[in-house]
Amino acid sequence: MRVLSGVKPSDRPHIGNYFGAIRQFLEFQHRHEGFYFIADLHALDQVRDAARLREYSFGVALDFLALGLDPKKAVLFRQSDVPEVTQLQWVLGTVTPMGLLERAHAYKDAVAKDKSVDFGLFAYPVLMAADILLYDSDRVPVGQDQTQHLEIARDIAIRFNRTYGKDFDPKTGEGGVLKLPSAVVLEETGIVPGTDGRKMSKSYGNTIPLFGTDAEWRKSVMGIVTDSVPVEAPKDSRKSTVFALLKLFSTPEEIAEIERQYRAGGVGYGSFKERLLRKIQETFGAARERRRQLERDPVEVERVLAEGASRARAVAGQVLGRVLRACGLRV
Amino acid sequence: MRVLSGVKPSDRPHIGNYFGAIRQFLEFQHRHEGFYFIADLHALDQVRDAARLREYSFGVALDFLALGLDPKKAVLFRQSDVPEVTQLQWVLGTVTPMGLLERAHAYKDAVAKDKSVDFGLFAYPVLMAADILLYDSDRVPVGQDQTQHLEIARDIAIRFNRTYGKDFDPKTGEGGVLKLPSAVVLEETGIVPGTDGRKMSKSYGNTIPLFGTDAEWRKSVMGIVTDSVPVEAPKDSRKSTVFALLKLFSTPEEIAEIERQYRAGGVGYGSFKERLLRKIQETFGAARERRRQLERDPVEVERVLAEGASRARAVAGQVLGRVLRACGLRV
Repeated sequence: MRVLSGVKPSDRPHIGNYFGAIRQFLEFQHRHEGFYFIADLHALDQVRDAARLREYSFGVALDFLALGLDPKKAVLFRQSDVPEVTQLQWVLGTVTPMGLLERAHAYKDAVAKDKSVDFGLFAYPVLMAADILLYDSDRVPVGQDQTQHLEIARDIAIRFNRTYGKDFDPKTGEGGVLKLPSAVVLEETGIVPGTDGRKMSKSYGNTIPLFGTDAEWRKSVMGIVTDSVPVEAPKDSRKSTVFALLKLFSTPEEIAEIERQYRAGGVGYGSFKERLLRKIQETFGAARERRRQLERDPVEVERVLAEGASRARAVAGQVLGRVLRACGLRV
Repeated sequence: MRVLSGVKPSDRPHIGNYFGAIRQFLEFQHRHEGFYFIADLHALDQVRDAARLREYSFGVALDFLALGLDPKKAVLFRQSDVPEVTQLQWVLGTVTPMGLLERAHAYKDAVAKDKSVDFGLFAYPVLMAADILLYDSDRVPVGQDQTQHLEIARDIAIRFNRTYGKDFDPKTGEGGVLKLPSAVVLEETGIVPGTDGRKMSKSYGNTIPLFGTDAEWRKSVMGIVTDSVPVEAPKDSRKSTVFALLKLFSTPEEIAEIERQYRAGGVGYGSFKERLLRKIQETFGAARERRRQLERDPVEVERVLAEGASRARAVAGQVLGRVLRACGLRV
């Protein structure tokens, strides 16, 4: 079974990204054929600076490799290194009704905020459909807010199959030119809270960086907002951001122990923060070191990406070939 | 100077297509570097049958080669054989405002007729911009009704250059990543009338095929609608469809002579039609024979198209390389 995950290059990832998506993406490589792409063509909407885009794209590769993506098993590649994806995107667009895209949440939200959006944002779901369908993906892990995009991809595939698939049965999904993918909705780990208690998000400035320096980690963790219950008094773990974060890193036994400490009193927030800091260091310290080593060897990382692109193109070429033959663009 | 012409594959061309566009396209090959592409990606909107699309696309190659396109000079290729064009289309789309496309006449007209249009029609001007800009085209011959598309292509190029061109000067057009093309508005040969006197058009069913059999030509020409002025009486050439068509094939001296015959009377419409038929045979008979020969040698035609694609890709690769480097998708 082939599982496809895409990550849009952006500024430094935080631990919210890790628990919300990256960790779950990485788990698939052990049980399935994992295809991981760096969605640089999708990033053009937001990152309009060549040096930054290069840095962010390369950064995604470093992140995944440092966190344990095994390039001998999984396929890691840049979206733009597979030209087949834009070819498929064009062909799919010719069978995509305008209405399907006009109803897309991301587009509607953007228009509601600012009417002068670019075509790239509107066309986004078509490229995303091509991303998915180009590799005969069986499963695509997506966040709850992205399930609509996967529905659109399925819809476009069904329309293509109906138009060009000789024996397509929409009930079973069999006999089509394009394979119909299914969503795997990412496990909601509970929303990962940021240092101010709201959802961790770059736009709130409340993140804990995934690959921070010790000083950055300490500064973020010590800045977590707490209430003013004194050290000796019992504390409510359910209202504590420090606890919510500690939970992500702890075994059930550890969680039970920390809960007891909250209830009993006698342990201050400062101690819980130190404990969280140690957990962060234990969990990401080695990955951070691997990332530093990889960063010093860009040639090796590029070699991995080139090999990934070549493996991805081997599949893409076959699927695109089926598509082009089906519509008469190739003999 | 490089001149780019595109032809959308469709059913058999008629002499209205020839005088309105094809003849003028072909003239450019003698004075300039002519790039001619078969716009099969654009045809997907309308032709949704693999066998027909293949036949139509191949037919365009036959038409142009039969009518004198010299593949040693000009570059003849299929749009879909150059994957760089959809890559550029995606990148350009990310700097294209929705409003620019919403104002496109072709889209507005289609929506006015039928609200359920597909994304391919809406995105058409972006792919057309990529068609043009991918080859550093200097001049693009277009019909009067297509000048807006060229304006959109220029607009998109300016936006890309402003976003990513370090030294772009919008006043001079210098220093940009993409070269700004100019339109050559096709000479209006007067509207070529169809057999019923209205503009010759497939949708009116009033065409004279460019590569008809003798029987088809005779049937079309003899079917031209005339008034009922008798043979011996003077006739008004200005109101005569036969005369309007004869004019396209005749020298100024011949035209003057035919006008005299109309004014003087004594020559019936049947004779003028015979004269027109001879002109059609003289003008297109040899090309028709060449087309038949080429049709029997598809391997040779495919060889020409493959060589054309390879020459087109040599240019496309360079231009796309500039674009990808400018936005950080390539080092």
